[in-house]
Amino acid sequence: MNRIDIRPRYCECDPMGVAHHATFPIWFEMGRTELLRETGVSYRELEAEGVFLAVVRLDVRYKSPARYDDQLILETRLGPVGRVKIEHEYTLRRDDVVVATGRTTLACLGADGAARLLPDVLARLHD
Amino acid sequence: MNRIDIRPRYCECDPMGVAHHATFPIWFEMGRTELLRETGVSYRELEAEGVFLAVVRLDVRYKSPARYDDQLILETRLGPVGRVKIEHEYTLRRDDVVVATGRTTLACLGADGAARLLPDVLARLHD
Amino acid sequence: MNRIDIRPRYCECDPMGVAHHATFPIWFEMGRTELLRETGVSYRELEAEGVFLAVVRLDVRYKSPARYDDQLILETRLGPVGRVKIEHEYTLRRDDVVVATGRTTLACLGADGAARLLPDVLARLHD
Amino acid sequence: MNRIDIRPRYCECDPMGVAHHATFPIWFEMGRTELLRETGVSYRELEAEGVFLAVVRLDVRYKSPARYDDQLILETRLGPVGRVKIEHEYTLRRDDVVVATGRTTLACLGADGAARLLPDVLARLHD
Repeated sequence: MNRIDIRPRYCECDPMGVAHHATFPIWFEMGRTELLRETGVSYRELEAEGVFLAVVRLDVRYKSPARYDDQLILETRLGPVGRVKIEHEYTLRRDDVVVATGRTTLACLGADGAARLLPDVLARLHD
Repeated sequence: MNRIDIRPRYCECDPMGVAHHATFPIWFEMGRTELLRETGVSYRELEAEGVFLAVVRLDVRYKSPARYDDQLILETRLGPVGRVKIEHEYTLRRDDVVVATGRTTLACLGADGAARLLPDVLARLHD
Repeated sequence: MNRIDIRPRYCECDPMGVAHHATFPIWFEMGRTELLRETGVSYRELEAEGVFLAVVRLDVRYKSPARYDDQLILETRLGPVGRVKIEHEYTLRRDDVVVATGRTTLACLGADGAARLLPDVLARLHD
Repeated sequence: MNRIDIRPRYCECDPMGVAHHATFPIWFEMGRTELLRETGVSYRELEAEGVFLAVVRLDVRYKSPARYDDQLILETRLGPVGRVKIEHEYTLRRDDVVVATGRTTLACLGADGAARLLPDVLARLHD
């Protein structure tokens, strides 16, 4: 499990004064990048080797609004890892308040855009 | 059901050369704004009257990549309308190819951020 | 000179209730894409041929706020065209009110990221 | 002078594989927020007191591309402070390479959108 700090940027907030819902998947992506980095894998290096992870499913539940400059914590957990897909779960909090929860499924693609097996470095996360 | 044209902007596309997944909820929001406008309601006017619609759930399935400057069609349909919530369904296509499908649930809030009944103009969409 | 319609999206507006200043360069990019298309050139095709146009200078003057769902007109004009650079000028209006003016300089790059001469199709715009 | 770390997010990079030029003003805004915080002022609190700072001029020179996940440093310096306007200067670096420089002018507005004098807490930065 990985934790990162998130502070909603001014431009990420909308006329309601709260973080726009389309910003949350961007934060989730940051969370899984850092989770990956903790396991010793840089997503940038994966791409340089021709391994791409494309989001094929996104599910977000918004529980409580987040405001500009709030101090939030995003927790990212690895979910099921298959042969070609990998899932993550997210919880975004402000202190004890759950701001949102989410789940994504990523599919592994080669440089040609075709589905491929997860590389060993990711497949072994399954264990 | 409403149809709008979508052309992925250059900045909406990522290093994979395809529209980034966080852009899709922005397009969905455009679709439901236009669907609302077709029924004679401007979301901007609703807000001016203190009626806010906040996304409480978002679900997207990404089926096929969309590229910069592609000519896409977004279809937005009204789903179930309750007393305080309203659902929409989305299908994004490039010709006969389904690029993505989605579903959102919106909750009605007052200017104070508290839940409130949908105004008549929206509640009657239920019929 | 090219004219396109711009309606600020909800997510493009900030807690002040107006279009965020970082959105304007995105609209300018849309304007020059359409100006280019009018001259028979698709930027997407240029890139497919290994010709990239990178912004090297951006200057924006914000004159009057633009609000969510406003009906704006963006005028894009070709400025000086050199051997490796091309300039554009922008005026964004709501009716007779000037919302913003801008200017960009683009440099021509090859697929390797190195500077190169503008292709004939762009260089001839100079005449 | 304030320094913050910037890592271009995946969604901030475009099909050229580099940070999109419209992202830079967002980073500049983060820089001046932190510069302000260092002087003991929270922009969020300023707004709560009815003081708004609107960008009226933006100038950016892009010198060298920034890539996804690069480790960048943004330096933000206070420029001239007038009675109703405040300027900032920005330098974005990757190690010894200057990625971009920028300059903004902000005007002080009241909650009604009308120009007003800078509050003392900002005006005294002039000294």
